[in-house]
Amino acid sequence: MKNLAIVGGTHGNEFIGVYLAKKWLKNPHLVKRDSFCTKVIFANPKAAKLVRRYVDKDLNRSFNLHDLNNNSLCSHEDYIAKLLNQKLGPKGSKNPKFDFIVDLHTTTANMGLSLVISHDDKLTWQVASYLCEIEPRLKIFRWLGDKENSFLDSITKSGFAIEVGAIPQGVLRADLFLETEKLVYAILDFFEKKTLHDNKNKTLTIYDHVELLDYPRDENGDITAMVHPNLQDRDFTLLKKGDPLFLDFNGNTILYDKKPLYAIFINEAAYYEKGFAMCLSEKKEITI
Amino acid sequence: MKNLAIVGGTHGNEFIGVYLAKKWLKNPHLVKRDSFCTKVIFANPKAAKLVRRYVDKDLNRSFNLHDLNNNSLCSHEDYIAKLLNQKLGPKGSKNPKFDFIVDLHTTTANMGLSLVISHDDKLTWQVASYLCEIEPRLKIFRWLGDKENSFLDSITKSGFAIEVGAIPQGVLRADLFLETEKLVYAILDFFEKKTLHDNKNKTLTIYDHVELLDYPRDENGDITAMVHPNLQDRDFTLLKKGDPLFLDFNGNTILYDKKPLYAIFINEAAYYEKGFAMCLSEKKEITI
Repeated sequence: MKNLAIVGGTHGNEFIGVYLAKKWLKNPHLVKRDSFCTKVIFANPKAAKLVRRYVDKDLNRSFNLHDLNNNSLCSHEDYIAKLLNQKLGPKGSKNPKFDFIVDLHTTTANMGLSLVISHDDKLTWQVASYLCEIEPRLKIFRWLGDKENSFLDSITKSGFAIEVGAIPQGVLRADLFLETEKLVYAILDFFEKKTLHDNKNKTLTIYDHVELLDYPRDENGDITAMVHPNLQDRDFTLLKKGDPLFLDFNGNTILYDKKPLYAIFINEAAYYEKGFAMCLSEKKEITI
Repeated sequence: MKNLAIVGGTHGNEFIGVYLAKKWLKNPHLVKRDSFCTKVIFANPKAAKLVRRYVDKDLNRSFNLHDLNNNSLCSHEDYIAKLLNQKLGPKGSKNPKFDFIVDLHTTTANMGLSLVISHDDKLTWQVASYLCEIEPRLKIFRWLGDKENSFLDSITKSGFAIEVGAIPQGVLRADLFLETEKLVYAILDFFEKKTLHDNKNKTLTIYDHVELLDYPRDENGDITAMVHPNLQDRDFTLLKKGDPLFLDFNGNTILYDKKPLYAIFINEAAYYEKGFAMCLSEKKEITI
């Protein structure tokens, strides 16, 4: 590990990343360590100023190779993606400039402290395992759902997103700000004292992505039901056949009718437009 | 009382009003009563589609007479304001077309169920008193802070806003949807059975606006501190000299140093740009 990037404000209305990036850009000594180089990036200041997730398109879905290499794409976020790819990558090269990306996110879902991991390499999982040891509340969501990972952290060979919630868009919460900051310092510690950690053959509990579940919608695509009050705020709950899932606007309950799976990212604001109400996942023990 | 208007989606990212208005526009019988006429208005569909508070400017600050009569103002929200003023008012006339407006709002602050009242007439306070009787959790914030009331409900002689929270922008919560709906039905009940209610000389607890308190900011206007974790989510808490108020990004606590006042609308997302972190208010008993 030579170069670590900490990215905040990938989504402009997720203020914890925005303000942590600003803090560290002003006070770089806080993230400076002896054995590697740390770069802090405030990814989308324009979206942050507008208090929007993005200006033109979702930056954190803009890092697939096809788009990065398509010169005709010139939206605000395409430009940022290409720039970050040059700075930190390039993606897919044998020797990208950076080794590890930590991308800071928040969610309106009650995810607590969690990691979203789309990498499958040893280093990523060693860091995750270390964080789970020192923060037992931390949960891991593994997302291998896309044909190609188009998240920002896919530029490098290792890395993940930190997702904390519940927090509204455009709002800072001191509690989650402090907890995110603590997790980042723990990551820096891991790399600084890496030789001290032996994570071989450790088992780790993860929530492995299975499918996305959309809201019921009408012929115009408008939602016709809300997340059921029994499920709201209960991320990482096991849904079983017959459990209340949605409540439609006329007061009728819609029941869950699939195999038992764990619901996460329940009722995240940004996912209404993406077409899902929650992610369904399998709980697994994995050995790293 | 001849004509009552229920307005939802005045702010496009406050989904409870948006979806209640849509529900009632599709099912007008739900709000139809024998003794008066109910009109449901979905105020800003364009902002709702964009999942933004507004397109050009805050609609709920666009109803002062000077702006309504200024034909050179032609932003999206100026246009809506003038149209609503024609439909429901005109404001300030002796006989506006409508008598009462209920305007549906949500907030990221933990306001529970509350009314924001800027009217001083008997009818408004009779309705408020009735609602407090049937819903003891309901709190009343009286806002007489501006030289001229520029809220949407100022078009008519009577009315108020319902504010419920905590809820993120761009999110529906079934619990608060159902509670808002119940409050609106209770308002309809009040008018339908009005002669049954004798609210004379009732006392009512209110939170009376005193001042707005901003976040600490740097020379560029950027915030330098967050609401202190001890205060977050504790709307309607009495702040006393020496209580923790903000936590700056370096971990220093900033203490409250004014006379004892109740904090409300703590950490509302939309108020970062307006320049305040919370409203300070006095708790009072008033006789209506």
